Amino acid sequence: MLRCVLRGSVTHVRDMSSLVHRRPVSAIKGSSVLAVTTEVAPLRWVDGGLLVLDQRRLPDEESWIRCETAEQVTDCIRSMAVRGAPAIGLAAAYGMALAANGGEDVNVAAERLRGARPTAVNLAWAVDRALAANDRLALAQQLHEQQREADRRLAELGAERFEQGDRALTHCNTGALATGGFGTAGGVLQAAWQRGRLAQVWVDETRPLLQGARLTAWELRRAGIPFRIVADSAAGGLIARGLVDRIVVGADRIAANGDVANKVGTYPLAVLAARHGVPFYVAAPVSTIDPHTTSGAEIPIEERDPAEIGSAEEGFNPAFDVTPAALVSALFTEAGVLEPPYADAIARVTP
Amino acid sequence: MLRCVLRGSVTHVRDMSSLVHRRPVSAIKGSSVLAVTTEVAPLRWVDGGLLVLDQRRLPDEESWIRCETAEQVTDCIRSMAVRGAPAIGLAAAYGMALAANGGEDVNVAAERLRGARPTAVNLAWAVDRALAANDRLALAQQLHEQQREADRRLAELGAERFEQGDRALTHCNTGALATGGFGTAGGVLQAAWQRGRLAQVWVDETRPLLQGARLTAWELRRAGIPFRIVADSAAGGLIARGLVDRIVVGADRIAANGDVANKVGTYPLAVLAARHGVPFYVAAPVSTIDPHTTSGAEIPIEERDPAEIGSAEEGFNPAFDVTPAALVSALFTEAGVLEPPYADAIARVTP
Repeated sequence: MLRCVLRGSVTHVRDMSSLVHRRPVSAIKGSSVLAVTTEVAPLRWVDGGLLVLDQRRLPDEESWIRCETAEQVTDCIRSMAVRGAPAIGLAAAYGMALAANGGEDVNVAAERLRGARPTAVNLAWAVDRALAANDRLALAQQLHEQQREADRRLAELGAERFEQGDRALTHCNTGALATGGFGTAGGVLQAAWQRGRLAQVWVDETRPLLQGARLTAWELRRAGIPFRIVADSAAGGLIARGLVDRIVVGADRIAANGDVANKVGTYPLAVLAARHGVPFYVAAPVSTIDPHTTSGAEIPIEERDPAEIGSAEEGFNPAFDVTPAALVSALFTEAGVLEPPYADAIARVTP
Repeated sequence: MLRCVLRGSVTHVRDMSSLVHRRPVSAIKGSSVLAVTTEVAPLRWVDGGLLVLDQRRLPDEESWIRCETAEQVTDCIRSMAVRGAPAIGLAAAYGMALAANGGEDVNVAAERLRGARPTAVNLAWAVDRALAANDRLALAQQLHEQQREADRRLAELGAERFEQGDRALTHCNTGALATGGFGTAGGVLQAAWQRGRLAQVWVDETRPLLQGARLTAWELRRAGIPFRIVADSAAGGLIARGLVDRIVVGADRIAANGDVANKVGTYPLAVLAARHGVPFYVAAPVSTIDPHTTSGAEIPIEERDPAEIGSAEEGFNPAFDVTPAALVSALFTEAGVLEPPYADAIARVTP
């Protein structure tokens, strides 16, 4: 039962029917990533093409989209078949490799990829790196490997802040699905669990696309970490009732002053955490920090299709919000745990 | 296409297939309420039975459930075919009339009705009134008429706090559907609109049952009031960006000190409003104030079926949260606009 049109988006990927792989992860043959089939690896370079795990269809099925052009990768990013700031950066790097290998105009491909989603800075960052590279496939694979290493390092650093019995709340999806590596906030939770420093995760369902209820729950289930899914609006009551010890989220862009753009609903959590003295952590690789963005006020907030909420006429659907640096207890990066004042700390770890 | 089982709930109403009316509101014949067919009237006493507008099926269809026993009314309340604190109080009063007329044990019926939903105090309040009454149908109809009058009065008082051009945010559904009258917070919005003091309503979709996206949007559409539906978690970003001038919500129970239990997600809104200096109003009839509940800490928080969120094993579904009185700018009641200190103001208007 192959499908020929991507669902859940206004974007249709053309001529994909013969390119879609729909096998369990462990059944993909002839791939060098077979050794890590127990890990979630949403981006796989196989036989000269990019396999993208279609995250819109999770957890119902593991369906793979094979991309052979940069335009197909762009469509996957725009339609959120692949999502999460680091993962879309990597997908874009692979897209640039496909453009170069296929003889496409790399500048056109770069512009298209860069415009697919405006808020996450990793996308532009990866495209810029690819434009400047000679061997674009080697670059993509190098960035992918660096992402894995960064994720593991920041997860280890973040997990040190956890204590036995902690009940942590998280928002959206920030695990391996979101980074192509080990995860940011999701990686911190995994590392904390492995160290015996996590009792349970509260998972915000994360409207409108339910990345928490669909993706984070799927990852936690696979990892055997206890969790409960709650309505996004229930987090405030949980915090007020003393049921949340820590909050950890990812980021789509961090400004030079430490302001954080992340999935809509992050800012209310930060405000509630501050009110109740609950530590509020942001976990992100250094590539998510944009030293050229002075503050959160400069971060463009993507508005997605209002039909994701109600209807095209009646919905309003900002996909992100901005959390001021003053509400962030610590920022977990692979270059260390950053603490206020963030402007100084960020200047030390960014180029 | 009559249905015989109520959907969206673990509760099944028995033997209802022949009792379900499925006609447009304006087509219901032989009812004394025909004069108000342009109004939303979710509870109608017709030919010795209670017609309940099935709010779970809105906005897709206007389907009516005819109740002839208190147990059927209990099922409608528990399954949220009728919801909203004042409306379930009125439904319970009619349920007590049905019990008395049908020769049921009124004490058994009272206990069953009282236990259908624990947080809203109007339910217990109405049942207690009915137990003490001689003519229970006359009492139900009197409470219904008083509700309409209270709603209109508090809506007028609340609307005076609005100013031309206001963009108001609301949560859940608090219009005529929720009260059987004119609405509490929803009535305030209607009155403000009629006075030219409202430009637009931001409607929280209100997960998990989407009372905002389904019911409030339906009411505002009928009234011709401009609105946009947003994810509950988007409200914080809207407030931070200066797009919200006022927040007005209803209540399920107000304690003697002014703490307010209302639909889950209300507390985060109150915290965000306070942070950004946005007035946060609660609109409720005096019957929602329980002078015997000292503070919010004593209010039982109903936990509904976790399957409304994710699954029975993985979801956690508190239906309400508590907003401390200190975050409430004013309390609109039919007895006047109450302001801090609430303990004194409440003592003056409650028995």
